[in-house]
Amino acid sequence: MSTLDAVLDRIDQDIDQSLERLFAFLRIASISTDPAYADKCREAANFVADDLKSIGFGAEVRPTDGHPVVVAKSDGGNGPRVLFYGHYDVQPVDPLELWKTPPFEPRIETLPDARKIIVARGACDDKGQAMTFIEACRAYHAVTGKLPLPITTMIEGEEECGSRNLFDFVKKNADEFKLDLALVCDTAMWDQDTPAITTSLRGLVYEDIKITCADRDLHSGLFGGAARNPLHVLSRILADLHDADGRVTIPGFYDGVKDLPPDVLADLKALNLTAEEFLGPIGLKEPAGEKGRLLIEMTTTRPTAEINGVIGGYTGEGAKTVIAGEAKAKVSFRLVGEQDPQKVRDAFRAFVRERVPADCKVEFGNFGLAPPLQLSFDNPALTKARGVLAEEWGHKAVTVGAGGSIPIVADFKTVLGMDSLLVGFALDDDRVHSPNEKFDLKCFHKGIRSWARILYALAEQS
Amino acid sequence: MSTLDAVLDRIDQDIDQSLERLFAFLRIASISTDPAYADKCREAANFVADDLKSIGFGAEVRPTDGHPVVVAKSDGGNGPRVLFYGHYDVQPVDPLELWKTPPFEPRIETLPDARKIIVARGACDDKGQAMTFIEACRAYHAVTGKLPLPITTMIEGEEECGSRNLFDFVKKNADEFKLDLALVCDTAMWDQDTPAITTSLRGLVYEDIKITCADRDLHSGLFGGAARNPLHVLSRILADLHDADGRVTIPGFYDGVKDLPPDVLADLKALNLTAEEFLGPIGLKEPAGEKGRLLIEMTTTRPTAEINGVIGGYTGEGAKTVIAGEAKAKVSFRLVGEQDPQKVRDAFRAFVRERVPADCKVEFGNFGLAPPLQLSFDNPALTKARGVLAEEWGHKAVTVGAGGSIPIVADFKTVLGMDSLLVGFALDDDRVHSPNEKFDLKCFHKGIRSWARILYALAEQS
Repeated sequence: MSTLDAVLDRIDQDIDQSLERLFAFLRIASISTDPAYADKCREAANFVADDLKSIGFGAEVRPTDGHPVVVAKSDGGNGPRVLFYGHYDVQPVDPLELWKTPPFEPRIETLPDARKIIVARGACDDKGQAMTFIEACRAYHAVTGKLPLPITTMIEGEEECGSRNLFDFVKKNADEFKLDLALVCDTAMWDQDTPAITTSLRGLVYEDIKITCADRDLHSGLFGGAARNPLHVLSRILADLHDADGRVTIPGFYDGVKDLPPDVLADLKALNLTAEEFLGPIGLKEPAGEKGRLLIEMTTTRPTAEINGVIGGYTGEGAKTVIAGEAKAKVSFRLVGEQDPQKVRDAFRAFVRERVPADCKVEFGNFGLAPPLQLSFDNPALTKARGVLAEEWGHKAVTVGAGGSIPIVADFKTVLGMDSLLVGFALDDDRVHSPNEKFDLKCFHKGIRSWARILYALAEQS
Repeated sequence: MSTLDAVLDRIDQDIDQSLERLFAFLRIASISTDPAYADKCREAANFVADDLKSIGFGAEVRPTDGHPVVVAKSDGGNGPRVLFYGHYDVQPVDPLELWKTPPFEPRIETLPDARKIIVARGACDDKGQAMTFIEACRAYHAVTGKLPLPITTMIEGEEECGSRNLFDFVKKNADEFKLDLALVCDTAMWDQDTPAITTSLRGLVYEDIKITCADRDLHSGLFGGAARNPLHVLSRILADLHDADGRVTIPGFYDGVKDLPPDVLADLKALNLTAEEFLGPIGLKEPAGEKGRLLIEMTTTRPTAEINGVIGGYTGEGAKTVIAGEAKAKVSFRLVGEQDPQKVRDAFRAFVRERVPADCKVEFGNFGLAPPLQLSFDNPALTKARGVLAEEWGHKAVTVGAGGSIPIVADFKTVLGMDSLLVGFALDDDRVHSPNEKFDLKCFHKGIRSWARILYALAEQS
């Protein structure tokens, strides 16, 4: 029996104990956003540290200005040095009355379709997912007496409140964390049978603009037709952002955006994500993005410009014949490929300034500037992971893009110069952040097995 | 000596007593918007009624659901039957600390440029202006023992709160007020030397629109690029309202809009209203209206489309990566000439609907639908009034358009079928609605003389 088979066997035999450990972790109400639960966060950190110590890691609960970070290290073999990232904190539970059973009393439920699920706050996000990795390490340690690779784990306690102290922590300890590859378990499968690896995260530029025309609000009877209306100026700018084909018109915006490799595009096409399926549940029918693109491209691998908010003039009930002195908008851009957030911001600001009349004024504010991340499609770790995931799940693993940003993963790249492999086992119906959060028992079990296979494959590399 | 000369002489000799009567009127704190001053409003109504009785009118203080209306009638000669409209109520006085002397203790002040002014709340708007007409009637009555024309006066007490009960009052008593011509004294001169007659009032269409795309707010990371953003739809609609030359693009919008007669346009041009003069004080430089039009046309005799308010999405501090489910705007149109408010509203709604994607929704609300008013440039009363005003002031009287609406004057036309001649003696520096409101003594005195001349000229007509 090969080492891998022995490890997989061990995982299968130990699954009830794995579940007990996860339940113990889930019973700790580690809500990071509410200061009343600070002790619970510390308790969760200690729980993780103790658990990691028991399977061969040297673990520390390291302080930050907020909740602590659990950093654990193990020598392992001579393979690539990996950094595993996860978080022990969970979302608040309100509205509590919508939970069928108390959120911190985990239980197993059987769904009408026979799926067994683990129900509790954090069952999926991220305690359950983080434990898939830790349990894989445990099985290795049990079978071989050591870990297969030099592994550092960084399990933080503030992901649900924006990882606000982690950025500094990573920067200050960059030497410690600048390893060969980051592994992250906080994303989703494509569907119940199809594993997925998130190979790109869109970047973000978030701008706030204020157009000022007259130095006061004006009566539209007296000044209407003569005084520049900032809402007209703003509407023109915002309308100009897209052409009739849904493309962003800012000069240079698409610099660094490449089409997907044909095989990746073919894989995405084969997933056959329909408008009915994706937009139907929110009451829409027609994709609004660039003409000629797949819906899944629009949401993950193509850049966007979105107006997030507009306000100006009179917005109460009834009528007020006013011409506002100023009008404001929030506009954000999702970036992909090699788009440079600084350049996009500068190009946007120039685009706006060009459309502001000489006697009016525009002011800008920036609330976000994150580069896009793209794992190279020929990254060897990605190739290996795809291969072993297919073995475990019996379906080809798809590579997908995430529409949103995961800021700390961006920092792994920009601050530490390290690629991240994002493999996750969440499902669309996991009710993450909502009442009755769940994680499929199958996802938990096969998730552990998946990590065992990935670690084994990465170790072979050396 | 002609009757007119005798009347003008009488006015000159009586000016100190005219001023005393005005002061007595000004001492009554008839603030209509504050219920605490209801008794003062009644006192002011009684004051006016008693005064009119003393000069040959049969006067009544007639109740409404709010403050009463003073209706007074006098037979006079056989000339056209005129309805004089004014109001005895005044604006609130706050901020009181900005008044140099108490607002209801009228006084005469001499300005550095030697102008004598009457300072008090209501000195101009509208007690002082209304009294110019009443004092002209008084002089006629004193000299000839009767009034020169069949005159009905309607002095209301709710103009400063939207004439809210007057519309019904006029409608219910339409037979009484359906006369030959309305005279109104509540507008302004062009400047200190140039009398003006307001010959047009712009109409109004005020619409509220709500665009709904998704049935909830969406995360822009997850749905950005695929889900229709109502702020994009709205911005496109609002930007499309005008072309690059500032013309409104709604099909049929300009139906019924005529260019001004060449002589009227020449008169307006001669006034030489500059952008520096009109827009400078509000911090602007460039007129924003239709290319090739005079600034004064833009604000008075051309129709407009203005966005009065927009709201949608996240408008607080900082960033929220949301795609709103809905977005709202308020849009109003100022109408001129023969534009039909119903048709403009319908055309606007069709214009909007055309730009709303099939899977989105638009809802409309209407908050105003008033036709434009235009006194024909060859109206004989207008011609006479222009002639005698020029005699009184030594300067040609200009005909101007008012940018805003005076709803009750619109009702005189639509409900009573009666034209209005709007002659007023206010100046731009009168601080109407503000602390230290004033009325030039010269405007008061020559205003009385002007009305005497106008009444005389109208009587000649018969």
